[in-house]
Amino acid sequence: MKTVGIIGGMGPLATADLFRKIVMNTKASCDQEHIHLIIDNNTNIADRTAALLYGGADPYPEMKKSALLLQESGAEILMIPCNTAHAYYERLSTEVSIPILHMPEICCRVLREKGVRKAGLLSTVGTVQTGIYQKAASKYAIELLIPDDEGQRYVMDVIYNGVKAGKLGYDTAKYEKTVQNLFDLGAETMILGCTELPVAMEMYGLDFACIDPTLELAREAIRLAGGETL
Amino acid sequence: MKTVGIIGGMGPLATADLFRKIVMNTKASCDQEHIHLIIDNNTNIADRTAALLYGGADPYPEMKKSALLLQESGAEILMIPCNTAHAYYERLSTEVSIPILHMPEICCRVLREKGVRKAGLLSTVGTVQTGIYQKAASKYAIELLIPDDEGQRYVMDVIYNGVKAGKLGYDTAKYEKTVQNLFDLGAETMILGCTELPVAMEMYGLDFACIDPTLELAREAIRLAGGETL
Repeated sequence: MKTVGIIGGMGPLATADLFRKIVMNTKASCDQEHIHLIIDNNTNIADRTAALLYGGADPYPEMKKSALLLQESGAEILMIPCNTAHAYYERLSTEVSIPILHMPEICCRVLREKGVRKAGLLSTVGTVQTGIYQKAASKYAIELLIPDDEGQRYVMDVIYNGVKAGKLGYDTAKYEKTVQNLFDLGAETMILGCTELPVAMEMYGLDFACIDPTLELAREAIRLAGGETL
Repeated sequence: MKTVGIIGGMGPLATADLFRKIVMNTKASCDQEHIHLIIDNNTNIADRTAALLYGGADPYPEMKKSALLLQESGAEILMIPCNTAHAYYERLSTEVSIPILHMPEICCRVLREKGVRKAGLLSTVGTVQTGIYQKAASKYAIELLIPDDEGQRYVMDVIYNGVKAGKLGYDTAKYEKTVQNLFDLGAETMILGCTELPVAMEMYGLDFACIDPTLELAREAIRLAGGETL
């Protein structure tokens, strides 16, 4: 079985969530049947949205450092549990000699396999504006619905002031209204296009039709590593 | 802040549990205020109890490999989220030049700080027979109550055929009876002395007075890395 490396810390809870999803979705009856993972929860990586949109500190040098560290440590496949960080995917791919899985593409491929034609995108402004999901969706002929400016602010708020801030009592009413608006516009499902959002589903007990790119990434990694998914 | 390394994979869910507990217990309002962790979820490490008691494959070479890899990768403190693996603690400490936290000692120190005098030990047979907790408990003048042979078999069963096997519908009745017996003998609390057992509390919705060494290890790591605990 192959060793899988995770370029993590973007954010730490999302990284822990991917780790847990890989373990929970691997068919294994003892420790030794699980996948060998090496995780660099590198919290020195600067905020991606801040860098892409507002001239914030560049996250790239530390992402590259993590990718190289993981490759040198024996990783044979890399994963990035942060959708926005996929803005750096092409550049990062040239730095290493091992494949990096592309989470938004995997997600859109699975949506297509499920027969979905129209999906809502819940993500950071950075992910929306860099067109990461738009590109992946058009490849699989899926129409994407994106929240309006006000709705997008509520999505950002649940990500930054809810999950990333570790706030357990966060009020999700405005976020849920934003989601409902996208369903009203014809979305068949929601792409939880920021790795903090699957965490939010559980943390705040939310319940709506959605696809979790972290989970699809976990399943793909298990298969590519030579394991069996549950 | 210091970088913390985790010698993981013993088992993978327990490693994910420690990771999550470190993140959830760090006072941080953004990714960058969290602790830089490097985790080697090394599932090539052989079963500790099988090796210690039944002449099974030696887990030590792979544990050593992980410890050295983490040190070379920049870790400044190491942790082992497996109680039984602490049977190799002294030997492993001589291989690296950075400190390794001792989970059972941290747990017993905290019990002492809480004023506990008598605690039940729920753990693998390997942990019981190598005396890891007995040594730590006697250092802090805590009396340990250990299940009888039948009870110990039920504890092993929930660890191996419940959590490690990922069985969600596992019947915990005999395990809970074993716990009740220890309370009846005067235990004030239970030491969840196998890292799979805090996972079992959540996985099976169990509820009894206990101390979670994984959580105490997480808190100690946050403090030693220079972070603030919640």
